[in-house]
Amino acid sequence: MAKSYLSMTKDELLICLNNVKSEYEALKSKGLSIDMSRGKPGADQLDISDGMMSVFEDGNFKCENGMDVRNYGILDGIPECKKLFADLLEVKPENVIVGGNSSLSMMFDYVAQCMFMGAGFTPWSQQGKVKFLCPCPGYDRHFAICEYLGIEMVNIPMTAEGPDMDAIEEAVKDSSVKGMFCVPKYSNPQGITFSAETVKRIANLETAADDFRIIWDNAYIVHDLTEKSDELVNIFDVLPERNKNMVIEVASTSKISYPGAGVACLASSVENIKEILKRLTIQSISYDKVNMLRHVRFFKDVEGIKAHMQLHAKILKPKFDAVVDKLNSELSGLGIAEWNVPNGGYFVSLDVTGGSASRVGVLCKEAGVTLTNVGATFPYGKDPSDSNIRIAPTFPTPEVLSQAMDVLVASVKLACLENLSK
Amino acid sequence: MAKSYLSMTKDELLICLNNVKSEYEALKSKGLSIDMSRGKPGADQLDISDGMMSVFEDGNFKCENGMDVRNYGILDGIPECKKLFADLLEVKPENVIVGGNSSLSMMFDYVAQCMFMGAGFTPWSQQGKVKFLCPCPGYDRHFAICEYLGIEMVNIPMTAEGPDMDAIEEAVKDSSVKGMFCVPKYSNPQGITFSAETVKRIANLETAADDFRIIWDNAYIVHDLTEKSDELVNIFDVLPERNKNMVIEVASTSKISYPGAGVACLASSVENIKEILKRLTIQSISYDKVNMLRHVRFFKDVEGIKAHMQLHAKILKPKFDAVVDKLNSELSGLGIAEWNVPNGGYFVSLDVTGGSASRVGVLCKEAGVTLTNVGATFPYGKDPSDSNIRIAPTFPTPEVLSQAMDVLVASVKLACLENLSK
Repeated sequence: MAKSYLSMTKDELLICLNNVKSEYEALKSKGLSIDMSRGKPGADQLDISDGMMSVFEDGNFKCENGMDVRNYGILDGIPECKKLFADLLEVKPENVIVGGNSSLSMMFDYVAQCMFMGAGFTPWSQQGKVKFLCPCPGYDRHFAICEYLGIEMVNIPMTAEGPDMDAIEEAVKDSSVKGMFCVPKYSNPQGITFSAETVKRIANLETAADDFRIIWDNAYIVHDLTEKSDELVNIFDVLPERNKNMVIEVASTSKISYPGAGVACLASSVENIKEILKRLTIQSISYDKVNMLRHVRFFKDVEGIKAHMQLHAKILKPKFDAVVDKLNSELSGLGIAEWNVPNGGYFVSLDVTGGSASRVGVLCKEAGVTLTNVGATFPYGKDPSDSNIRIAPTFPTPEVLSQAMDVLVASVKLACLENLSK
Repeated sequence: MAKSYLSMTKDELLICLNNVKSEYEALKSKGLSIDMSRGKPGADQLDISDGMMSVFEDGNFKCENGMDVRNYGILDGIPECKKLFADLLEVKPENVIVGGNSSLSMMFDYVAQCMFMGAGFTPWSQQGKVKFLCPCPGYDRHFAICEYLGIEMVNIPMTAEGPDMDAIEEAVKDSSVKGMFCVPKYSNPQGITFSAETVKRIANLETAADDFRIIWDNAYIVHDLTEKSDELVNIFDVLPERNKNMVIEVASTSKISYPGAGVACLASSVENIKEILKRLTIQSISYDKVNMLRHVRFFKDVEGIKAHMQLHAKILKPKFDAVVDKLNSELSGLGIAEWNVPNGGYFVSLDVTGGSASRVGVLCKEAGVTLTNVGATFPYGKDPSDSNIRIAPTFPTPEVLSQAMDVLVASVKLACLENLSK
């Protein structure tokens, strides 16, 4: 193991700094241009769903209730697609609405609905200040919804078990705290799956607000990288009666089939589903039912989805391994960085010491590697300790990924050495 | 020509009533079950777009800028689809956002945005009472958006040239009047195309509200039934500088390709497009780009769309003819009904005298024919003169349509005779 920078003398640090600087400059001179900013599947991952494109060759567009999916109608999704998602989420079809190609839209529309039309009570926007709890590091697009709608965000630290439940239980005593965003499985970016205890404590929250809502974004519900899948407790199974309307779960096939043309879904209590359909019946005539049937015909059932996910894992595992191996071999023992080794999801989360993350972002950028904006994993784009870096290994080819990781580890060393040798 | 009921003696009316009653009862005894409630294309119309399903047989998913449409990205639509809609709407691609499968959603989301986030000024919802002008009879789903969002609706009568412009010019002097819904071509339900003069007067409105918006729902932009297409002036061509942000146009392929799986679009000033994208970038990552490219590959260009619309017209014209022929042969000269003969669109609008429309709806229903809810063509579902009936001839087969029309004309005669012979 390498000697920790933290135990080096100033002279040793300066020697290291000079060496790393040369390494970095050499990498920079390659003139790379690599985008690792988003959790985007690679083209080879998209190819494995192309069979979807020929499922209507037989000209049969009828779904199981006899309806022609090409025509108008059915607001909450065709029955077989409701069932597919119900099975996937382990809920009943009556608790499911099948959406368009974006679970993000379903979340946005729902939070906006609570804000302006209310969640069973006076609209949030008419109740004074509204706050959301945001476990972080987290997903920037959740934070963006809050910011756009004028919802104040409260940082909740993440632990290895999920969000800090003591902090949450305390925070929800404030009735202006109206909700929380969670990615409970393979969290973005840390790949943490909430423990059974955490899910139970969330389900049993005693919130001051009667109209408190949890957006349970199960984006990586079947997105395992290894045979050792993390287990997430089904929150609906542990919800007490008093909290029966508290949880809105969403998921999608964006990272199962196509990110640009998948199918999203939402699950909640029958009461919430009814409230959402009240809006939807005004907002739309139906989501794209042809695409729903296309997905059902292609995947058939949850087993079909799971088999398909193994094909994704086969492509993705080597990429995640390459990232983790490089972090292990280059940064282990230096005392300047920590990272997770996720069993699923789309990211590796890297934490650097000494408030150096922004500097790492700049160094990477100058050497042609675009990371997710440093800070983006926190509300308002502000990482209080300037430590978190989200690594998105899925899109680049393995060769490109290897080059990008060389730049990243050199940048981490350089930024931390600059800092330590000051 | 038949003798007008209005010139009959009471005895003559009673004889007529008895005859018509027998006719109606005979029809009722057939036990029909026909749904003519919505403007739904027939299955044969859907079939002509099935070629769309095989456009990706070559495995090429790249759009013209090299992007893989299966993946994330491009919020405002792929370039070739923006161009296709720009050409169709006769605007520039920079003025277009390509949406999902629903122009209704684009309208709902935009009006909600103005309501809660504002149209360049304080959100409408924070300006006290908000009103919309609703030319009527009109499209029930427009009215439903207003009602859901708490926007008060003001009836504006339709004339043969479009909405009553004197009434509109007067109404917009009220600064709480924030907008108007229009179906400017082959209006729903009357099939009226706004005259050049009407479009110009709308474009040049002097509104008291600086944040006045017109939702220009060009749902039937290329939906001609005959070779003699109505001409609609492009409102963007006649907008004075001061009103440059006033118009939001939408259209879709719902009645060009598939109602359940088409592509919608929105056109407006660059400034408005920017405001909408500010929301969309929070609400979504992209609409379904695979479906966009599927449409462009299938239709190729506006000429392709126009050729395709001739296939629709070939199917639809006989249905509209059957409706109009039946109205002509059975109701002409009776003095109890008037109707339009549209050159395009999806409806025939029938007006009956003496406040009998609701009664016609009930009689039809009892004889197994479901019409669009009588009243639905007016704000709040209330037709002040209880006269308007929307006939949607597109979905039934010609034989079924003929049966339905027999029921309808008998019901009209019966309802009016009941009334006149009181």
